[in-house]
Amino acid sequence: MKVGIIGANGYSGAELIRILQLHPEVEMSIMASHSTSGQLITEQYPHLQGIAENRLEEINIDEMMGSADLFFFATPSGVSKNLIHRFIEQEIPCIDLSGDHRLKDCDLYEKWYKYSPAPESVLQKSTYGLPELFREEIKNSTLIANPGCYPTATLLGLAPLLKNKKIHMDSVIIDGKSGVTGAGRKASLATHFCEVNENIKAYKLGSHQHIPEMEQVIQAYSGAAATITFTPHLVPMSRGIMCTIYADLVEPMTTEDTLKLYQEFYHDEYFVRIRQENQWPATKEVVGSNYCDIGVTVDERTNRVMIVSVIDNVMKGASGQAVQNMNIMNGWDENAGLIITPVYP
Amino acid sequence: MKVGIIGANGYSGAELIRILQLHPEVEMSIMASHSTSGQLITEQYPHLQGIAENRLEEINIDEMMGSADLFFFATPSGVSKNLIHRFIEQEIPCIDLSGDHRLKDCDLYEKWYKYSPAPESVLQKSTYGLPELFREEIKNSTLIANPGCYPTATLLGLAPLLKNKKIHMDSVIIDGKSGVTGAGRKASLATHFCEVNENIKAYKLGSHQHIPEMEQVIQAYSGAAATITFTPHLVPMSRGIMCTIYADLVEPMTTEDTLKLYQEFYHDEYFVRIRQENQWPATKEVVGSNYCDIGVTVDERTNRVMIVSVIDNVMKGASGQAVQNMNIMNGWDENAGLIITPVYP
Amino acid sequence: MKVGIIGANGYSGAELIRILQLHPEVEMSIMASHSTSGQLITEQYPHLQGIAENRLEEINIDEMMGSADLFFFATPSGVSKNLIHRFIEQEIPCIDLSGDHRLKDCDLYEKWYKYSPAPESVLQKSTYGLPELFREEIKNSTLIANPGCYPTATLLGLAPLLKNKKIHMDSVIIDGKSGVTGAGRKASLATHFCEVNENIKAYKLGSHQHIPEMEQVIQAYSGAAATITFTPHLVPMSRGIMCTIYADLVEPMTTEDTLKLYQEFYHDEYFVRIRQENQWPATKEVVGSNYCDIGVTVDERTNRVMIVSVIDNVMKGASGQAVQNMNIMNGWDENAGLIITPVYP
Amino acid sequence: MKVGIIGANGYSGAELIRILQLHPEVEMSIMASHSTSGQLITEQYPHLQGIAENRLEEINIDEMMGSADLFFFATPSGVSKNLIHRFIEQEIPCIDLSGDHRLKDCDLYEKWYKYSPAPESVLQKSTYGLPELFREEIKNSTLIANPGCYPTATLLGLAPLLKNKKIHMDSVIIDGKSGVTGAGRKASLATHFCEVNENIKAYKLGSHQHIPEMEQVIQAYSGAAATITFTPHLVPMSRGIMCTIYADLVEPMTTEDTLKLYQEFYHDEYFVRIRQENQWPATKEVVGSNYCDIGVTVDERTNRVMIVSVIDNVMKGASGQAVQNMNIMNGWDENAGLIITPVYP
Repeated sequence: MKVGIIGANGYSGAELIRILQLHPEVEMSIMASHSTSGQLITEQYPHLQGIAENRLEEINIDEMMGSADLFFFATPSGVSKNLIHRFIEQEIPCIDLSGDHRLKDCDLYEKWYKYSPAPESVLQKSTYGLPELFREEIKNSTLIANPGCYPTATLLGLAPLLKNKKIHMDSVIIDGKSGVTGAGRKASLATHFCEVNENIKAYKLGSHQHIPEMEQVIQAYSGAAATITFTPHLVPMSRGIMCTIYADLVEPMTTEDTLKLYQEFYHDEYFVRIRQENQWPATKEVVGSNYCDIGVTVDERTNRVMIVSVIDNVMKGASGQAVQNMNIMNGWDENAGLIITPVYP
Repeated sequence: MKVGIIGANGYSGAELIRILQLHPEVEMSIMASHSTSGQLITEQYPHLQGIAENRLEEINIDEMMGSADLFFFATPSGVSKNLIHRFIEQEIPCIDLSGDHRLKDCDLYEKWYKYSPAPESVLQKSTYGLPELFREEIKNSTLIANPGCYPTATLLGLAPLLKNKKIHMDSVIIDGKSGVTGAGRKASLATHFCEVNENIKAYKLGSHQHIPEMEQVIQAYSGAAATITFTPHLVPMSRGIMCTIYADLVEPMTTEDTLKLYQEFYHDEYFVRIRQENQWPATKEVVGSNYCDIGVTVDERTNRVMIVSVIDNVMKGASGQAVQNMNIMNGWDENAGLIITPVYP
Repeated sequence: MKVGIIGANGYSGAELIRILQLHPEVEMSIMASHSTSGQLITEQYPHLQGIAENRLEEINIDEMMGSADLFFFATPSGVSKNLIHRFIEQEIPCIDLSGDHRLKDCDLYEKWYKYSPAPESVLQKSTYGLPELFREEIKNSTLIANPGCYPTATLLGLAPLLKNKKIHMDSVIIDGKSGVTGAGRKASLATHFCEVNENIKAYKLGSHQHIPEMEQVIQAYSGAAATITFTPHLVPMSRGIMCTIYADLVEPMTTEDTLKLYQEFYHDEYFVRIRQENQWPATKEVVGSNYCDIGVTVDERTNRVMIVSVIDNVMKGASGQAVQNMNIMNGWDENAGLIITPVYP
Repeated sequence: MKVGIIGANGYSGAELIRILQLHPEVEMSIMASHSTSGQLITEQYPHLQGIAENRLEEINIDEMMGSADLFFFATPSGVSKNLIHRFIEQEIPCIDLSGDHRLKDCDLYEKWYKYSPAPESVLQKSTYGLPELFREEIKNSTLIANPGCYPTATLLGLAPLLKNKKIHMDSVIIDGKSGVTGAGRKASLATHFCEVNENIKAYKLGSHQHIPEMEQVIQAYSGAAATITFTPHLVPMSRGIMCTIYADLVEPMTTEDTLKLYQEFYHDEYFVRIRQENQWPATKEVVGSNYCDIGVTVDERTNRVMIVSVIDNVMKGASGQAVQNMNIMNGWDENAGLIITPVYP
């Protein structure tokens, strides 16, 4: 099957190339980039010398449409909303790594993203591509809204408790920590080495666009509404996201019982690994892979549960999950191309 | 005045040397270290060549006692509890940077530190050395229990709300992030560069010894008991601590009003700086200095207040604050030797 | 084919597991470790959860011998010299990642390594496992001395010039820069995060044990003796080695002609990539992969050639090259299990 | 005395503020910045809150001229050459931290900097501000060309050998390693955290503009011409430069004798510290300070001397040295405002 990558020049685009180049079922046919079209991908990424030497093409929908059977959009927010509906009209499967097709409510998108939304009819067709929670819906979808990086770590961290109604819905606090790849490859003072290095910084307190995404999915998945608190932080590392999640238990539970709940819930999931009691995952333990590793503790003093959930934001938080979705859409092994051991250290 | 440093070989010890060497009122008379006695301090710290070239001496109480008018204990937990009472009996002022004299309750110390406690009579004489909250007590004390790094950032971050009874006492959650100096200089797998670098790791969930310290001080300061949740994380940087603090407001408040409360509360404090609305401090902005920088936001959706409080853990979280305490005890300018601009970047 | 790993607990051991677990021709039968025997490998490396969950065994030669058809020794220097001869007597193929079987001259080993050497008869049987230079010898060898990390980058960087006698043999200066994995996983002050981070440090000036290794191979390969200068530096990163190599040209050459020489020399080599004129490789461009990337420039002002050669020290500088050697010894595709795209960024 | 800073918004500008704010003899009167004029300096640098809260002014020569008695130019290359001559005409002392007034030969400037040069008459008046070598000239100068960061470390590292004619002049090779502050604060892909982090990169091989600067000063200082090789590298750290210098000895010397030569040469220099035999300085050991630390070794196998010279590029390599020059010009203590212990770790 031929696949195309729109926005190949960013970090998610480069990661898609890394995965797809070894994927047993696909061939990369087209790589497009607005800002660097005309260049060889190796001019932007010398590490791809001898591996992928495609020339980046301009984003021209009419020309691209026939060149692949499925498209990944690895574009910044505010781009795919103007393009994807054209593909969907032709029933060409699309996986959107940006936030443009995640929120079903147009007003919500406009409020949090500050752009005009995608056409409502297209939004209604989109499926939230978190396979561990919505696998069946993904199988039959043409348009996947690939989840945000923080929501992926958070929702996988909360799902067993939500499903079993173990927590007070308005008590959820998520303290997120992200590596700098999450900010994209565009040069800015905020990503300058000397500003990030030896530093930790909170940002967008109470105003991050992943808040409505998490609330929407929590409600869709659990049937109950939640208003959450979420604070993201920028950490001096390239890859990795950790969400430390706090919630009040409805009834007292032991750490042991809570862990059992998680182990059963994720028993058949290839990409979710539950740590043993008194062990918590570190981001480095998933770098380069599609795993989400989770540790859980109940603080009996406060009757709160604390969950530590980590992913590689470029993999399970973006490109790896996108390929996982593609595999499901096509009926392939869900881990095809994704059997990758973390690179440690 | 002559001062001595017990435990000069650790990072807090070296930082005391950096500060005291330029302090207008003191002279360093003795530096002692159990593990490296006999060496020149420059063998351990070549950066001190030409600045401080003392020989490290064995920790011998009888010999040391006469050699200085005040002693700093920059020793690991479990050491000063066996030594300081000897100095206090002679009414020689001591500032203990370790946790050995912070908890007034012997059982609590034993439970959280896993050591037998200091003599209770000595514990009762100790004063918690957080100058912004307990300045008057410090003036008249001979034994200062210098606060822990996380408690310093947390308590300064919470004090205006505690004082004014603005938050629900059992709603406080502290998500702490620390640089690696916080783990001390002793070599271990946990501080190996390759294990820490490009990584973020949670540790001691629900079991960190700073929990009872914070609870004790919150109660002492506000008159009301609190059971808190605190989760520390290790971040790939050398210096700096950030505490992101969450609490439920008793009544709705705006961010603007909350900031006003903070600005008034800390109006005369040299070492506390409040950021403007929608600005939050980063740890790098205090590195090398004794400042505590604080940003505050109210999330009106959830009626929660979020506080971001940062310090240099080696300075305001340890040695800088110790010198600030010494200044107060001696009636000197509180910022003597501490007028230091952060080193940025 | 069954393979065993002696010294599985170090970084090279863990990297062998990462590679071999996906290798099409082998099965890992035994993992042994002196310091952590009895533990599960996941206790040391949680990132292997669900991937490799072997128990680490004690190093017992008699018991191990029958359990695999080929053994990797990923032990520190001074260990394999006492063990490997037992395997070689039984004609069991061994690949030694340590320096114990690289130097043919016993006295030289003793002088630079400060240990007594391996039995001379075993040393004479060992083959220096740098496939790009000694492929034929490797095919027929039972004992591979896997090259050091600095020598790998240096010798691949120099080979085209040596082969064509383009440089003065006593003019070679190598300025090496290494990530901290090169120092191994053992905790020490020298690898403490706070000592390495935000720092660059030269070490072992004129006394590094890779000096005689490089000189021996230069002579063996080019037929002419060389006395080289080599200065290693420790750089604040986990993986990667760069050797910046300086040499005086025998006759003036242009950069263009020199690059042509390199491109032809390495034309058929899968793992060596030559950069274009005015482009020099960065270590990050090979991280996680078995590539050696090389850039070359002639400084016409001084008639010197400057070569920048980079590898991932854990891969092409250790475990990746070891697997490449195993592939050659067994007649498999040389890149079996090693078709890995660098993880960028 | 009133001093002004032109280019206050860059890292050297911010560092001048850090130093001057505590300098006993001066008052900062004006801070100007082309790109951020109109802003408070704290908008760019929140760490200066409560310390320096000046408003950045537009660069307007006529208005600025009367506002200070001495001006620092912390502007990028290509800026001060169009401004400084106006001040020099009025005999207002200027210290230029950029490269615009270092090369006496206009053609050389044009060739290596790719800009048109400063007026030749002004160039002839400029003094190369390396105090340890040219103190007397600095005393009587109105225009100081503050040395480049690499040349500072290199020239101090070579001076004792040059002075005593101990090395072959065409054998000098300098392998430079710099932290990222050396690239300035302007955002670019080259300084993006994810591109620099976990990476080492060589750049401008054989074409760096500090080459003619070093050659000019070597000739001026030693009386003999030299053609040098210099290769800079970018290292993942914020501050610090290391130059590893290689040169062939004219006659054999021991390490001991060479060290004696250095110790005598720098005996009275406050800011140069010579390490003992078999010890080499690390960049972190000078961070935040104005020291240049030097280690020396003779490799008797090759008759080469190897020198490791480190500075904080923002201090001794820029702003610290600029203040040292100001002190000399004004007859103040040379270390006024510069008695600063390195911040370690």
